[in-house]
Amino acid sequence: MSIQVQAVKQAFHSQVVLDELNLTIEPNTIYGLLGRNGAGKSTLLNIISNRIFADSGTVTMDDESMRDNDRTLGRLYLMSEVNLYSDRARVKQLFKTTAYLYGSFDFAYAEKLAQTFGLDLNTRFGKLSTGYRTIFKLIVALCVPADYIFLDEPVLGLDANHREIFYQELIETYSEHPRTFVISTHLIDEIANIVEHVFVLDQHQIVIDGDVSDILAQSYAVTGPQADVVAYTNGLNVIGQDALGGITAHYVYGGLDDNRPIPDTVKIEHLDLQKLFINLTNTKEEAATHVN
Amino acid sequence: MSIQVQAVKQAFHSQVVLDELNLTIEPNTIYGLLGRNGAGKSTLLNIISNRIFADSGTVTMDDESMRDNDRTLGRLYLMSEVNLYSDRARVKQLFKTTAYLYGSFDFAYAEKLAQTFGLDLNTRFGKLSTGYRTIFKLIVALCVPADYIFLDEPVLGLDANHREIFYQELIETYSEHPRTFVISTHLIDEIANIVEHVFVLDQHQIVIDGDVSDILAQSYAVTGPQADVVAYTNGLNVIGQDALGGITAHYVYGGLDDNRPIPDTVKIEHLDLQKLFINLTNTKEEAATHVN
Repeated sequence: MSIQVQAVKQAFHSQVVLDELNLTIEPNTIYGLLGRNGAGKSTLLNIISNRIFADSGTVTMDDESMRDNDRTLGRLYLMSEVNLYSDRARVKQLFKTTAYLYGSFDFAYAEKLAQTFGLDLNTRFGKLSTGYRTIFKLIVALCVPADYIFLDEPVLGLDANHREIFYQELIETYSEHPRTFVISTHLIDEIANIVEHVFVLDQHQIVIDGDVSDILAQSYAVTGPQADVVAYTNGLNVIGQDALGGITAHYVYGGLDDNRPIPDTVKIEHLDLQKLFINLTNTKEEAATHVN
Repeated sequence: MSIQVQAVKQAFHSQVVLDELNLTIEPNTIYGLLGRNGAGKSTLLNIISNRIFADSGTVTMDDESMRDNDRTLGRLYLMSEVNLYSDRARVKQLFKTTAYLYGSFDFAYAEKLAQTFGLDLNTRFGKLSTGYRTIFKLIVALCVPADYIFLDEPVLGLDANHREIFYQELIETYSEHPRTFVISTHLIDEIANIVEHVFVLDQHQIVIDGDVSDILAQSYAVTGPQADVVAYTNGLNVIGQDALGGITAHYVYGGLDDNRPIPDTVKIEHLDLQKLFINLTNTKEEAATHVN
């Protein structure tokens, strides 16, 4: 029951966004979809959700094309920045509309979430603040009967309290009723302990596709005097570097050389997900500017 | 040379936003201005910057009113979400306009920042993506010759790489050329190590006004079996609580009772700034919902 994205290409005007991109989304997994601003994350989610058509390539669910396919698309929900709602409609009416479109809706959970977030069900959509529009869309996403739920920037503009409520509710609803969530966000630190598997989209391709624990197990910061660090990481996959005072840090992805002795002056630690991401996706120009 | 906000009141229609609010902004300090969505942070910054007029109260710089006062207002810059720029103007023209308005502008630093962020100086403002509009406004804020720089949501929509560049540049420019920054943001974890002093705006007032180190020194998480935690924190200022499995956490602000013995079953740690903020500003309704 997985979703396969195969050889998807997409260009806008003559600018390539996605180039022969492949990935598989499995059932009952929480994914992080990470990428720089403009990397094409929203484009990818829109293609999978049939909102835009790829120039070429296929999106299938168990070998069945998802293009204009009501049966497969009904099992999928995309929460995005686009507002599809009438300003005049009240929140509770919009819940009913969603129930009608998707065949069912968890009204009891929606009411509980609305209370937790402080959202009044009688408010008209047009009267909601930016933050509460996001909250409304989050509630819909957690209450539709979909097996695959795509959340594009789900916490943009939310304050820290509301973000924490969302993360807690996500973990709770997932453990009570497992399904797949794909979360696209710039707040990587905050989802690092929630997502199981990460896709990193960079240079029009998926450059990392793996379990968070596996990825972090092969991500290192090597810190110490410059000469020692450079000698130790020579030949390894150095994805970035920093310098502060007399101390140099090299960031390594893909494992170390176990046969190489570690100098006493050098400290080796694991990177966190956000730091790994930043170094993996920094363009050469920016990396160069950093060093100067 | 400090800025004094005294007894400022502001209501929109009949809804009170700020009520007899007082604060002092000193020279050469990095402040965090924290508050929930809709707490009135932007309103406060707009009042100080003379963009809106308070219903009552005063804003002064060294006892001189800042209302419509070109001399004092020229020493202050507000970066906000509002776009004040012509879509047709190119980035480098807008730098020149700013130099004209403010008497000078650090063109060399602006060019270096543009290169670091990957912003093309020849782009027209209207062609910039949301992220790059923020970056453009950040560059202007760091290069104007102002003594007081107010940054309202300076990293909204920026990816992790660009946020890291901004934080690094802020620290660097501040240490080379000290001046005051007031940063209003929802990403509290990310600025916790940068700001020296914090204002927390809640219920129309400044409820916390202190140095970060002092504030965190009196913020605690008390964790253990429920009965022991409740007994230990009885009478202390408990601002929030969590429960997970059989473990209860009480969050305390304002210090512990040194004469009270700590049970072996109870663990006491300091809170971080974001967790403190969340517990301080959770409304009673939300706190109640959490406990259920």
